[in-house]
Amino acid sequence: MVSQDKLRSILSKLKAQQGVRGVVVTNMEGLPLSSDLDPDTTEAVAAIITSLVGKALDAVRELREGSLSFLTLDTSKGQINIAPDVKEGLILVVLKKQS
Amino acid sequence: MVSQDKLRSILSKLKAQQGVRGVVVTNMEGLPLSSDLDPDTTEAVAAIITSLVGKALDAVRELREGSLSFLTLDTSKGQINIAPDVKEGLILVVLKKQS
Repeated sequence: MVSQDKLRSILSKLKAQQGVRGVVVTNMEGLPLSSDLDPDTTEAVAAIITSLVGKALDAVRELREGSLSFLTLDTSKGQINIAPDVKEGLILVVLKKQS
Repeated sequence: MVSQDKLRSILSKLKAQQGVRGVVVTNMEGLPLSSDLDPDTTEAVAAIITSLVGKALDAVRELREGSLSFLTLDTSKGQINIAPDVKEGLILVVLKKQS
């Protein structure tokens, strides 16, 4: 289990990076555990991304591609980087501005 | 509409790139239009990735992130690069080896 202190330190470093719009940590059930976005956006990101990660994990398993380490969405608004940690039961979501 | 010749030329260039395991083009209904993988894998990739793209398009719309240009999955077996072209009704899937 990752300690709260370690998690906080990682999140601070991430948020300080250039172009980062927001960082959300959620559990595998879509319950947000940490976020620097407003409550409504946090809830939406946690729920929608968790559901997408579930689908991506299914896809990777069905295609026998091993395990999923990252999922990246490039959009016209920027990039969404998603790192699921199935073992820890956590999903890290980093929203970036368009570079 | 992208011409068959142009599509063929793009696919040849892609397949010639180092580390590319396979290239599949499918329509938005999951029907494969071009592939250099065996029929079973092609069918699985087309169906599963199309379904995942549908979910990703929903997620991007719900999160008001504009339009989705790329979806990337990093796995223990390599990388799956997905470029949906909603206008053309096509999805390009490139499977890469782990670098």
